Amino acid sequence: MAIINENYLKLKAGYLFPEIQRRVNQFMLANPDKKIIKMGIGDVTKPLSETIIAAFRQGVEEMADKSTFKGYGPEQGYPFLREAIAINDYQNNGVDVTTDEIFISDGSKCDTGNIQDIFGNDNKIAVCDPVYPVYVDTTVMSGKTGEQEENGYYKNIIYMPCLSENNFLPQLPSQKADLIFLCFPNNPTGTVASKKELKKWVDYALENKSIILYDAAYEAFITEKDIPHSIYEIEGAKKVAIEFRSFSKTAGFTGTRCAFTVIPKDLMAYDSEGNEHSVWKLWNRRHSTKFNGVSYPVQKAAAAVYSENGQKEVKATIQFYLENARIMRKELEEAGYQVFGGVNAPYIWVKTPNGISSWEFFDKMLNEANIVGTPGVGFGASGEGYFRFSAFAERENVLEAMKRIKNIG
Amino acid sequence: MAIINENYLKLKAGYLFPEIQRRVNQFMLANPDKKIIKMGIGDVTKPLSETIIAAFRQGVEEMADKSTFKGYGPEQGYPFLREAIAINDYQNNGVDVTTDEIFISDGSKCDTGNIQDIFGNDNKIAVCDPVYPVYVDTTVMSGKTGEQEENGYYKNIIYMPCLSENNFLPQLPSQKADLIFLCFPNNPTGTVASKKELKKWVDYALENKSIILYDAAYEAFITEKDIPHSIYEIEGAKKVAIEFRSFSKTAGFTGTRCAFTVIPKDLMAYDSEGNEHSVWKLWNRRHSTKFNGVSYPVQKAAAAVYSENGQKEVKATIQFYLENARIMRKELEEAGYQVFGGVNAPYIWVKTPNGISSWEFFDKMLNEANIVGTPGVGFGASGEGYFRFSAFAERENVLEAMKRIKNIG
Repeated sequence: MAIINENYLKLKAGYLFPEIQRRVNQFMLANPDKKIIKMGIGDVTKPLSETIIAAFRQGVEEMADKSTFKGYGPEQGYPFLREAIAINDYQNNGVDVTTDEIFISDGSKCDTGNIQDIFGNDNKIAVCDPVYPVYVDTTVMSGKTGEQEENGYYKNIIYMPCLSENNFLPQLPSQKADLIFLCFPNNPTGTVASKKELKKWVDYALENKSIILYDAAYEAFITEKDIPHSIYEIEGAKKVAIEFRSFSKTAGFTGTRCAFTVIPKDLMAYDSEGNEHSVWKLWNRRHSTKFNGVSYPVQKAAAAVYSENGQKEVKATIQFYLENARIMRKELEEAGYQVFGGVNAPYIWVKTPNGISSWEFFDKMLNEANIVGTPGVGFGASGEGYFRFSAFAERENVLEAMKRIKNIG
Repeated sequence: MAIINENYLKLKAGYLFPEIQRRVNQFMLANPDKKIIKMGIGDVTKPLSETIIAAFRQGVEEMADKSTFKGYGPEQGYPFLREAIAINDYQNNGVDVTTDEIFISDGSKCDTGNIQDIFGNDNKIAVCDPVYPVYVDTTVMSGKTGEQEENGYYKNIIYMPCLSENNFLPQLPSQKADLIFLCFPNNPTGTVASKKELKKWVDYALENKSIILYDAAYEAFITEKDIPHSIYEIEGAKKVAIEFRSFSKTAGFTGTRCAFTVIPKDLMAYDSEGNEHSVWKLWNRRHSTKFNGVSYPVQKAAAAVYSENGQKEVKATIQFYLENARIMRKELEEAGYQVFGGVNAPYIWVKTPNGISSWEFFDKMLNEANIVGTPGVGFGASGEGYFRFSAFAERENVLEAMKRIKNIG
């Protein structure tokens, strides 16, 4: 008899975005004449830039010709892309990451989920609350948790509330955490962590032989000086941290699919007898057994992000989204909202007015301003009373949305 | 303390293809003037065909334009591709598979590995021997096995020897198997299964509430009539089978990356109390939580495989590889070898002469004929005394290789 993985039964059926879609569909059916502005899901709106498209095209042409055709590539990614990343994202910023520490993949969602595979079920996981739901759901699926409790928390996960009271920065847990998911710039709150803040976590991990799973998918949106772009800017981090990065938000690859994970050679985890094992070796084994590399033309396109023109273009696009965020912050503040994030991140995290719930505010935005955002509680219990606006939008929609919000008062 | 998944420690460090590469490198260093012909790894050699490239290009152009740009797509794949598959690969052949039963992915290696996630560790897995190593390695990683024994078998896996004595067809196991990996046309032996043969398995699975994990990656190479192309041609199979297919060998996508998995809505698995659960729902949950869809231009390219010209082109390429296989069979037989497969598959499975071992034959081929093939024992204990030649090669290399083999006698 084929037996299911019963951990899946612990998962709540309803996922945030389907519920949003349901309410939006219902509204549209009842109000077919209303023009809805979507500022919900964090998906880019600008097309791939010229230089990236040129490289993508070239990759396709190479697949058409016997002499340049590529069959199976290295599972870990082509050296040309791994090198471009190591040099441009790390070494040029004085961060010692080598080419073979970089694993190319088809997305950070996959990587942050799949990383669970190489760790045993005796690990205690810590996550921020609110949090990107994938970390929690994949932790549940892997069998590292108990059942869900009434407040939405799963047993055996350490939740670290991030609220305006603590500047949305997680506090060191009192219980020992073995694997710690951190995401800066943060989704959904838009918060960043200073070097001092990250050092606190690296020191904690060094002391407890924990591993930090550092999601830096929004790194390209950092504008303020002295905010670390990589956790490896912190001394000792190569001994305790895995870093996830993606071309999705950096270069508009949400539909093109390319990302990477950095696993330092120095990073160790332990068996139940306390013996050290190389995490790089474990991940390399997983990656080469369960993955077959990213499409060659996509890797060509990703490498073009690091060319001189590629850099100019992707930076201009990020600047465009950040200008959206700046406008949104200003207008929302003028409308009387308490606003967070949006300076080093494409997300604006708003306190709902008069203590109304996230979903009440969602309905108010939808019904009165015809704007779709994301209820904070969808990211966890501590997101209750907050609401996320995404700055990934066309300018005219941003301006129109802000006008509508001001009008409803 | 971060604890590793200790199941990884059960895996043998050496993988087949790295060991082959090591021996080849050593030979090349010692014999820099020799021209080696590679017939080892099953990788295609022909470029993507004209119609596929045209669609691939168009997909890239759409990503360059704001009005056609695609961000996140459905995790399960775009409807245009799922529909093309459902209609052309199934419905037009009288097989009832619907669009929403098809999940697009980036490879069958990923799918056959990831499928383990949704099944619990109490399942007993059955595999053919010899076998595609990924099924076994991912079973070990997931924790469904014990340690490896001296003959290379892992405890708690049911191995089904496939030898010339049984026409390389697995026998029903005497122990109960919960999940059964079957691959037809078979890698590595090139064997196919008749309807009667597959019916035996479907009946077994129905009786035992088992699930068949049916790898049909080489389906496009079937030439003989009455050989089923899909397991769903067998009555009742939709209640007991998952089918994996790929564009890799069908259309030369090994470096482009696109595949799909069929999970029928009727397929059920069970919790430990014996309650039924929809496997489709479990996989849909996994797929949408741990995967973010295949690159849009790649899906466009894959859909073009089903156009009239696309079909003509991919069939011509497959015909080319099959003609290679025909030549190889004929020449190897004339050279005195006992030869299997190669009629409905791109693999020729050869009995090593005079009872020498697979690796001895590998070294003989490498040293005397400068040909690289794959030692049968690399696919499992019952592959000992066999050798795999791949028909994915250029014609002149096939002819030259056969000449050399005849010369060494």
